[in-house]
Amino acid sequence: MKVLIIDEMHESIIPLLEEINLEVDYRPSIQRSEIISIVEHYNGLIVRSKTLIDSELLRYANNLKFVARAGAGVDNVEVNELRKRNIQLINAPEGNRDALAEHAMGMLLSLLNRINIADQEVRRGTWDREGNRGVELMGKTVGLLGFGNMGEAFAKRLSSFSCKVLAYDAEKTNFSNEFIEEVSIAELKKRSQILSLHIPMNEENKGIINEEFLSGFKKLDYIVNTSRGEVLILKDLLKLLQQKKMKGAALDVLENEKINSYTEDELFVFQELTNLKQVLFTPHIAGWSFESYEKINIVLSKKIKLLVEKIDYL
Amino acid sequence: MKVLIIDEMHESIIPLLEEINLEVDYRPSIQRSEIISIVEHYNGLIVRSKTLIDSELLRYANNLKFVARAGAGVDNVEVNELRKRNIQLINAPEGNRDALAEHAMGMLLSLLNRINIADQEVRRGTWDREGNRGVELMGKTVGLLGFGNMGEAFAKRLSSFSCKVLAYDAEKTNFSNEFIEEVSIAELKKRSQILSLHIPMNEENKGIINEEFLSGFKKLDYIVNTSRGEVLILKDLLKLLQQKKMKGAALDVLENEKINSYTEDELFVFQELTNLKQVLFTPHIAGWSFESYEKINIVLSKKIKLLVEKIDYL
Repeated sequence: MKVLIIDEMHESIIPLLEEINLEVDYRPSIQRSEIISIVEHYNGLIVRSKTLIDSELLRYANNLKFVARAGAGVDNVEVNELRKRNIQLINAPEGNRDALAEHAMGMLLSLLNRINIADQEVRRGTWDREGNRGVELMGKTVGLLGFGNMGEAFAKRLSSFSCKVLAYDAEKTNFSNEFIEEVSIAELKKRSQILSLHIPMNEENKGIINEEFLSGFKKLDYIVNTSRGEVLILKDLLKLLQQKKMKGAALDVLENEKINSYTEDELFVFQELTNLKQVLFTPHIAGWSFESYEKINIVLSKKIKLLVEKIDYL
Repeated sequence: MKVLIIDEMHESIIPLLEEINLEVDYRPSIQRSEIISIVEHYNGLIVRSKTLIDSELLRYANNLKFVARAGAGVDNVEVNELRKRNIQLINAPEGNRDALAEHAMGMLLSLLNRINIADQEVRRGTWDREGNRGVELMGKTVGLLGFGNMGEAFAKRLSSFSCKVLAYDAEKTNFSNEFIEEVSIAELKKRSQILSLHIPMNEENKGIINEEFLSGFKKLDYIVNTSRGEVLILKDLLKLLQQKKMKGAALDVLENEKINSYTEDELFVFQELTNLKQVLFTPHIAGWSFESYEKINIVLSKKIKLLVEKIDYL
């Protein structure tokens, strides 16, 4: 079987795939048009997020058996088109869920304890203790929207902080345990003081976290988004923060992450948000650790091995 | 009984103490000379850290039964002098250990995930993912030096991060459990990749964390200090960081926290440290949350109640 890798990946992927007898072409800087022109020669595509895997591209992928996403989110893959063509889809959330959970905890605690703000002050020579009191997570109620690999890994970390963890997942039920209480959306909105987003990006979820949704919460102070930027309408968040209806936000992802190509409106919202001290930003790196870079490959190659064995068997 | 409060405290302290029939004088801005002139009229002193409670002051404290520290560290109290005069010492680490543990976790995760660095970049319009990969706590070995209230509260948070937690305490043994392995100093130095300080400041501990001590570690990459600044020699830490023998530090406390009164040498070390991105600073706020401000009073007044009852009984 021949596999084409179309994005940059940790170098371990090549020996891992060769070990399972795949022929690997590593083309991290290949462009869409060239992928289209050669994709018919491959049985597997390994992707990150640069290229949209859509019907136009798949039309030429006559021999494709699987698409493997080196990461968690598959929003750059048209899942229905794969299904139609009986092409399997593999992803590797198990490889970066721990990195994501640690990053999300770090962002939340940094936000609650003003760590980034206080760090800047000390560097400038200001030693202000009273102005930098923190807010404790202990005793608070954290609501998780989405309880897949990411939500569950985040919940695991929260379990040692003596806070209450609620979770809602549109596609899952019966997942309550000692530390997590499965709730309805109504209950999530009624009780959460901190909301953390762990939903995938797809047509239904686009812009779902808007002013109306957020205003439905009774006690919401903080929001953490380490999922996908497109699910959260930033101008609505900005409005709630400016009106002091919410106290802070930790944003690892943005609606548009190409910040140098912003429209005037996008730039305005971004600048207003960056003017707020109570908003913490990171550049879509929550699942992005040195360890996850390798772990993703291990998870992916194991899943590909199982799939290839199944294909060979059939 | 009459009690004098000589530092600023959360307002809840007055009703809490009046409830146990103490007469309270709240004098948050009182200076040392005036304390000395009136201390003989009081049975209790409630302090934070502004005033040194030493033999000179205690000479006038003929009726003093207890000194209560609204917080954890008692390095501003000459403990031996109290003992000599049979004056009880009370502190309230149970009131701020959770704030401290959350802050220490926030600093560690922020350091490992470059959250403060990346936040500054995004605010300036830079979206650099590859340059901001994090290091996972999962699988790492964290050594705790000191396992009192603070060390234990920090260990509790670490317990959900799938890391190995070692601890050494000079005054405690037999405290291993499911999540914590009690070790010797030699073992701590051999295995720790991250070191977190939870020791009190006293004569023996002053400057104990110096170049020699730190160089004895075999794999040490990161240090977190949320205990007392005077235990860690900053110029030695700076040297190890500059020589790349260590990768980063999170400092909530400094040897001298009056940064506007630095000598030339102190200023040099401070400036060199603030020039390093891999050092994270906060202004001695680890145990400093809105919640701890009140919890300290609850803990303190409960302990004072028990003590007063005992004194009344005797």
